[in-house]
This record gives sequence, structure tokens and C-alpha cells, in this order.
Amino acid sequence: MTGRADSGTQPSAGARDAAGQGPLGGLRIVESTAFIAAPLSTMSLAQLGAEVIRLDAPEGGLDYRRYPHAPAGASLYWSFLNRGKRSVTLDLRRQEDRERAAALICAPGEGNGIFVTNLPLKGELTFEALAARRPDVIVLSLDGSPDGATAIDYTVNAACGVAMMTGPQGVAGPVNNAMPFWDVICGKTIALGLLAAERERRLTGRGQHVKLSLSDVAMASMANVGILAEAELTGASRPRDGNWIYGTFGTDFPTSDGARIMLVAVTGKQWQALIAVMGLEARMQALATAFAADLTREEERYRIRHAIAALMGEWVAARNLDEIAAAFAGTAVCWSPFRDVAQMLAQDWRASIRNPMFQTVDHPGIGPVLTPASPLRFSNHDGEGARAGAHPAPVLGADTAGVLGGGD
Amino acid sequence: MTGRADSGTQPSAGARDAAGQGPLGGLRIVESTAFIAAPLSTMSLAQLGAEVIRLDAPEGGLDYRRYPHAPAGASLYWSFLNRGKRSVTLDLRRQEDRERAAALICAPGEGNGIFVTNLPLKGELTFEALAARRPDVIVLSLDGSPDGATAIDYTVNAACGVAMMTGPQGVAGPVNNAMPFWDVICGKTIALGLLAAERERRLTGRGQHVKLSLSDVAMASMANVGILAEAELTGASRPRDGNWIYGTFGTDFPTSDGARIMLVAVTGKQWQALIAVMGLEARMQALATAFAADLTREEERYRIRHAIAALMGEWVAARNLDEIAAAFAGTAVCWSPFRDVAQMLAQDWRASIRNPMFQTVDHPGIGPVLTPASPLRFSNHDGEGARAGAHPAPVLGADTAGVLGGGD
Repeated sequence: MTGRADSGTQPSAGARDAAGQGPLGGLRIVESTAFIAAPLSTMSLAQLGAEVIRLDAPEGGLDYRRYPHAPAGASLYWSFLNRGKRSVTLDLRRQEDRERAAALICAPGEGNGIFVTNLPLKGELTFEALAARRPDVIVLSLDGSPDGATAIDYTVNAACGVAMMTGPQGVAGPVNNAMPFWDVICGKTIALGLLAAERERRLTGRGQHVKLSLSDVAMASMANVGILAEAELTGASRPRDGNWIYGTFGTDFPTSDGARIMLVAVTGKQWQALIAVMGLEARMQALATAFAADLTREEERYRIRHAIAALMGEWVAARNLDEIAAAFAGTAVCWSPFRDVAQMLAQDWRASIRNPMFQTVDHPGIGPVLTPASPLRFSNHDGEGARAGAHPAPVLGADTAGVLGGGD
Repeated sequence: MTGRADSGTQPSAGARDAAGQGPLGGLRIVESTAFIAAPLSTMSLAQLGAEVIRLDAPEGGLDYRRYPHAPAGASLYWSFLNRGKRSVTLDLRRQEDRERAAALICAPGEGNGIFVTNLPLKGELTFEALAARRPDVIVLSLDGSPDGATAIDYTVNAACGVAMMTGPQGVAGPVNNAMPFWDVICGKTIALGLLAAERERRLTGRGQHVKLSLSDVAMASMANVGILAEAELTGASRPRDGNWIYGTFGTDFPTSDGARIMLVAVTGKQWQALIAVMGLEARMQALATAFAADLTREEERYRIRHAIAALMGEWVAARNLDEIAAAFAGTAVCWSPFRDVAQMLAQDWRASIRNPMFQTVDHPGIGPVLTPASPLRFSNHDGEGARAGAHPAPVLGADTAGVLGGGD
């Protein structure tokens, strides 16, 4: 981690707002949200230059103190999901504060009138009430299930079959994801929905109510890669198969020094490079003959994957990670060592300030830590150096007076 | 699956294009893409009414025959990732066909001039060449790594630490994801980037080159939920912990009839409902006393999760899945049975045509299968019934003459 803390650049949200940097300059979004998907959606838009105002209870919302915590005390979870936003505290259980929130959401201005929530809001903050106040308002609301029933990432994942497809073959029960992937996908989908609705409003003047549910996001995603249709047409679910990649050649191998690598050959170019580096052309040809396999086709590489891996495994097991990295360097081989997060931070330049996406940013209650801008780089806004959008988290309530008092 | 095949509605992409349905009507995107992220991005936009024209080699691109396959022969993977698009075949290795593609991308029209690719295109199809032809062109290009190096979902996942956080505690090696989650997140991020660039073009007249890489999407996502900062600040990676949810109460339990359920209590309301249904108020109070734990706080529920689960496990193990479902019905308990994909299709109304997101659609080379529209529902376009956007896949090359011949 040496050398990160002194990198220096610490953009402030205020400076960005004033300049309207990024492709979404001029857009203002108000949110009353919790957990991952909804806060992530607006954080993604704040990184692109939108002004995002987060409404929270004076003591913090449901997610204000969620793990993990920084040693200095703040929630890394809340802080990182709300970077670059302004924080306004209101007690939305009180009619008077809901009224102030509604006035803020519906304030005049072409880029205003956008509200995002995943909470059960009533009275002044329903779509109907907001649309009565500002007819072109855009409200996006997220539910767990399409009927409004509660569901979170982990229950949706249990319902949709992924946990029975994950993990080593010997495991009998479900294997959960380590990352809340469905929430992340849902967050990006919300951001997409907001920009689509804002485009329509710009062209037609019409606002609308955009709705989605986490379970719909998950089930649609599984359909999108063919997994639902596969089960419908065959009557059976795809079984778990360890670290093999379905339908192509790819799996993990142990090295001579106790590391593990992921080796993949999805394209013909990758496949040719892999067997060339390993010097396996002749033996792979013999293998193809033995199995009557056309190894130029990935489905054939998939069919005899165990035999291919046995040949390749000898090559990998005879070398340490450094030797393997040297052999693959500059070739078309598609591979990676497996690492834990601390090893990634120590070893992978892509997760360091050598990557222009990352900067070291000082966050309230956390201190200086590696912080990403958006993974999207826009040529009108971002040069080859450090990118705009790697903002710190706000202090809870820091913008209440500035925003509600009519400042800014 | 009974009753699905006769549901009937089979919207055609052509009808949609003519009507310009959806919030993205009038937008036209050309793509030269393969695999998941890039095709998924434009498919998501096609579902919202954009016209998407996919360019492929006459024999099909790198991904045209990828597994899984339908019994009738077509790739479910390719078909489902390219629904609602038009298919034009060109041989982009030939200068003359690149010229035709460039002319198509840069054709006059406010909503035209948008190109998406994850392939190494040269000559007429670089951003510079297209911008020379149409100064306000928007080109989005996806790489594996920020330096342009090859990486795919599975090597990025190996690099970024997730595989060492996934799976049961006893497992020593990496556990891969069963779904290409990073690709899906990347696809949604591309769609977001395209709409952001299109908004800027509409407001300023300026096009631009938008770039991103799969590894940046993954590493940013891990930072966004605090996992990178946690490892940086503590010097250690979060260890794998089976099916426990980090930082709150949630894990899996076996039922008396051999099923498994996921039980979660993220909010106070969910927690109170759960112990009330189980009749565990007094015993949970005694547990809290024994551990000096304030169980109204989720971090305290996390701290003594093993003891809580031991109490709850007795209740679950004494009941079968039907009894448990009946006990939880109508309460605020957040839970789900674990299922495989075939069980989900048979048992969960959310993965059936009872859910307005899904329709049975007849795809070329596949036949009628359950097909989702976008999970986003727009009140200006979608009623309570079946939604627009559940399109079939195109036939390879079906639109070549119509699009390039100047028709439409």
C-alpha cells in the first residue's frame, strides 16, 4: 500500500457540482434509499456529474452503520455507496419534513424533478402526490418482488437457482455468492432506467413512474444468458461443475509453489497461443485424434476438457507462478492468478493509483483510501490521467442547511 | 411448464421499430460485438425501444454457436443476448464492408451515429475515422483491462479476490461464480455510458469516445461495497464464511423434508417478525442476556449469529417446507427456499407468464420459450399486463438487405 496515501488528489463534491463536470452535468436527483442497489444507482450517476441529494433521518437511515467499519469508526459500506452525494437530514415520518422533501424534489429547473426510492414512502412522497405538484416528475421505485413483497439479494439468489449451480461438485447444499451481485446489477439497471426516462422527458415533456424489482432483475439476467431457456427446454437445471466454465475450455490449476491460476481459451487465438506456449501442439493433436475431437471448436474443447486439463496441468504443476507469468507475458493467453483482495491490492496495478480510475481520497470517519471514479471514461471529460468522479463520502447532514436553506 | 406455449403474444422487432415504442424510441445503435457484456448492453436498450443493428460475419461471429444450444439447434446464449435486434451480415475483414458499416453508423439522423464494440476494429471503424465522417459520433469500446490487455469474466474474477471469498469454510481453493456476473454488470454499465453520452450530445452537439474495461468494472464494484477499503485498512481480506451474510443475520437452514431455506433479518422489522413467528421471543431474550448482546442492532445479530442460528435451526428442522411457507406467509419475514432453475420455473410465479415481465416468445431455431422484457417498467409505456420488449432473437443476416439496401 506504500505510496498511496501521498497521491494527493482529493476532489470535493462541491467543486464538481459547481463546475457541472461530466456528461450528466445539470441533472439533479433526490433519493430516499437504503442498502445497495438504489444508493449505488445514484452514486454511479453522481460519478458522471449529476448532483445527487440523499435524504436521511437525523440519526442516519437503516444502512448508516452497516459493516464493514473503518478502524476510525465510519461504515465503509455506507460511505462507499454514497460517494459524491450531498447529505440532507429530514425526518420523513413527519408530514412537515415530507413536505420539504417534496418541495425539494419538485423544485423548478429542467434537470430537477427526479426521485429514487426503495423505501415504502407515503403521503407527499408517492408518485401521485409528486406528479400533482410537478407533472413531469420522474419517480423510480424499487421493490423486492414484482408484487411488492420483500426480497433481498440473498433470498432472490436462493430462489433463482444460482446457489445450486455454484461450487465444487462434492458440495450438496447451496453455495451463496460472496458479492451481492444482484444488487449491483439492479443498481446499474436503475441508473439506466433513470436516464431513459429523463431522455423521454427531454423529448416529450412527460415524466413517469418507473418501477422495477430485484427478483425481476435477477430472473431476467438468468434468461439473458440462456440459462432459463436451457432448463425449460431440457427439463433439467445445469448442474454445478466446480471451476469449469460451461461450454468452453477454462478451469483452475495448481502451480508448483502453491498458487492457483485460472486458464481460459474462449477464442481460437487464445487456444492456439496457450498450446504454443506450453509446447503441446503435437500432444494436443494426439489427444484430438484419440477423442475424435475438432479442437478448433470451443464446444469440442469443452467436451474433452478433463483430458485437456490433464495435459496442461502437468505443464502448470512443473512451474511456479513467476515462471508461468513470464511464459505467458506478451502472448494471447487469457489467464490470471487467483488472489485474495489484499493480494490484489499489493500485486495488481489495476487496483492501485497506477490505474487512472483510482485515486487516494480522504473520506470523513475513514481517512485516505483507494477510491474509484466511474469505470466509464468519457473523452470529452477525462484525459489519460486521473479521472474526475473519485469523490469522498458526505458527512451525514452536512448539506442540510445549504440545500434546504436555498443556498447553492 | 404447462400452459406457457399457448400464451401467444409474440411481438416482432419490426413492429416495435415502426412504432418507436419505449422511452428510447428514435435511438439507433450499431454494434460489432461478441460474448456477453457488449451484446447485453444493447439488448437492454433494444428492450426500451432503441433500434439496434448487429453486424456479424456471414458465417456468424465468435459467439454465434456458443453453448447452451436448443434441442432445435440454435445457440440459446447468442439468441437471448441479441433479442430485439436487427441482424446485418458484413465481412469486416474487407475494406469495402467496413466502409459500408461506417456509412451505416454515421448515417444522417439525430438518433444515429452510435457504435458499440468490444472487438479490435481497424481502419474505417476506429473512433477517429468515424468522427472524421460524423463529428458527433459516439463510440463506446470495451476492453478486458484498462491497458487493453485481454481479460474475461473468469480471469477478472480470479484476479479480484471474489473466488477466495466464495464457498464453504472447508474449501481451500478458489470457487468460481456460476453466473458471469461481471459481464452482466459491465453490460449494464455500457448501457448507462451510452445514454449519458447521448444526453450530452443532445445538449451540446458533441459526440465522444467512451471507454471502459471489464476489470475496472469489477474492481470498482468491489470498492463500491467497501470490500477494497476494508482490505486496505485492515491489511487482510475478508475470509470465506459459507452461506453467512457478512455483517448481519442471514444463513441457510435444512428443513425436515430435505429442503433448504435462506433466512435473513436485515432490518429490525424483519428480525421482530422472524422471532415472533418462531415463538422465540423469550429464548432470544435469554440468549441476548447470555452474550450481553443488543439484538436490535444487526451487527450484534451478526456477532452471535451461530447461537441465533442454533435456536432457529431447531424450529426449521422440525417443519417441512410447506409448513414453513405457511408460517411465514403474510409476515415481514425475509426468506426463500433454495431451488434449482427447473424448480424455479415449476414453482415460482415470478418466473412464469403470471409475471407481466415474461411472455412465451417463439425464437428462430429454438421454438417458444419463456422470454423476459426489461425488468424496468415505464408507466408511459407499460400497463399492468404483458410488457413490450420481450422480443425474439433475429435470424442471422435477416435484415442485411433491408438495412443496407436503404429500406426502412
